[in-house]
Amino acid sequence: MTDNVHAQKGDYRFPVRYAETDAMGVVHHASYLVYFEAGRSHLMRQLGSDYAQLEAQGFQLPVTEVSVRYVNSLRYGQDVRLITNIAENRSRQMQFTYEVFADDAQECLVTGFTRHVWTNKSGKVIRGPEHWVKLFS
Amino acid sequence: MTDNVHAQKGDYRFPVRYAETDAMGVVHHASYLVYFEAGRSHLMRQLGSDYAQLEAQGFQLPVTEVSVRYVNSLRYGQDVRLITNIAENRSRQMQFTYEVFADDAQECLVTGFTRHVWTNKSGKVIRGPEHWVKLFS
Amino acid sequence: MTDNVHAQKGDYRFPVRYAETDAMGVVHHASYLVYFEAGRSHLMRQLGSDYAQLEAQGFQLPVTEVSVRYVNSLRYGQDVRLITNIAENRSRQMQFTYEVFADDAQECLVTGFTRHVWTNKSGKVIRGPEHWVKLFS
Amino acid sequence: MTDNVHAQKGDYRFPVRYAETDAMGVVHHASYLVYFEAGRSHLMRQLGSDYAQLEAQGFQLPVTEVSVRYVNSLRYGQDVRLITNIAENRSRQMQFTYEVFADDAQECLVTGFTRHVWTNKSGKVIRGPEHWVKLFS
Repeated sequence: MTDNVHAQKGDYRFPVRYAETDAMGVVHHASYLVYFEAGRSHLMRQLGSDYAQLEAQGFQLPVTEVSVRYVNSLRYGQDVRLITNIAENRSRQMQFTYEVFADDAQECLVTGFTRHVWTNKSGKVIRGPEHWVKLFS
Repeated sequence: MTDNVHAQKGDYRFPVRYAETDAMGVVHHASYLVYFEAGRSHLMRQLGSDYAQLEAQGFQLPVTEVSVRYVNSLRYGQDVRLITNIAENRSRQMQFTYEVFADDAQECLVTGFTRHVWTNKSGKVIRGPEHWVKLFS
Repeated sequence: MTDNVHAQKGDYRFPVRYAETDAMGVVHHASYLVYFEAGRSHLMRQLGSDYAQLEAQGFQLPVTEVSVRYVNSLRYGQDVRLITNIAENRSRQMQFTYEVFADDAQECLVTGFTRHVWTNKSGKVIRGPEHWVKLFS
Repeated sequence: MTDNVHAQKGDYRFPVRYAETDAMGVVHHASYLVYFEAGRSHLMRQLGSDYAQLEAQGFQLPVTEVSVRYVNSLRYGQDVRLITNIAENRSRQMQFTYEVFADDAQECLVTGFTRHVWTNKSGKVIRGPEHWVKLFS
């Protein structure tokens, strides 16, 4: 992804929480969806706004599809290093992609994407607000 | 609790979920608050109504205090057996108590209580609705 | 799914928990992965064994991929009705599929699948134990 | 706590995650136990070690009691500001206390404590390892 300005913007690092692990001794597979969501929120804050504001303005960006591939496991004691990118930014829908690493390691442990639609508060699909579509582009 | 009609009503049994365990191999301590909440919901349904209805009527019963003592651990593969009781049912506040067992064992593993206040939708403390205060008594 | 014996076996119904909802007022999208996992566990118990036993015998069946499509939302006050099926049962890997409904409604709200590999305790991919591969077939 | 060096050490700030909210529109009450745990982990890292190391050395510090009082609510869009302190550091047990604030506000929203015992890997209560008892003092 040579010329993706968001690659740097989307970098987020935070420690694994013990509550996110399971009896296999590793991070539970559902926890990664929560990480992805945290990555989206982080990216929005970096772009100068946030999802709370978006909701306050009467918009929502609910998840319509997720896909995750698990190659290897994160463990408690490690940092989650998460790279979030915007793969699609269309008038009514968006796609984000995610890559998860442990600490400073190069091996990508988990990858995934989420698709979203723009809706108003009552859940009706709408065109994304111009201000946000620009921020994301 | 010899003559507590709710003791039987408050019985709830369900399997431990893998996601509720942690790297110690046992149910994570925060999961019990979720069990307690499920126990309250179950008790309300047994009393002939439910918390969703209560909210639809414009009331809320938020938690103002929790206390939990952990004597021993539940594990994946076991059933949670949860006894929920109403310890206090006053005009503006309530207290529920909880006892957690594994499967058919007699040993009580975890005990706790939660305190609640009655509020309206905007969070203002109010007198509990007569209908519900009666149901709970 | 006319003659799928697992269709009936894989039926599982349980109430939405309040903790599983989010500020949009609906079940959070990550909660469905926990439901799917509960569906697999339920199916295994119905087949006469369970995942705890599988682990006690030295085997694991970790998730290598998940995919979920969200058409509509579950809410607190509703029952999750989950149909779990075995879509693939090969020597080293398995695939489960999931359909989520609300209460007795016919509309399918959420669908998904999970892929798994058989491993030993140290995470090495192995052939699935004959006993289990038979149970699942 | 006039001259408590840990008051500063225990400061931890991080954004509320959407998954931690519930249908009331605020952070779910069980999420605070996860915050408290993250606060303990953070404090241990600040003291120059961490809980992962502690476990690797064969020790555990499981929770035996929690108590939480909820005065007001955190919301998505806010930062959790968490102050973690060591209230008791005895040979076999410890107590941590917690205060939760929103962003830079002075109002303390949630307070709580957790009690812990030192155990070995098999869960037997032991004297805390000298190295750690010193770190915590």
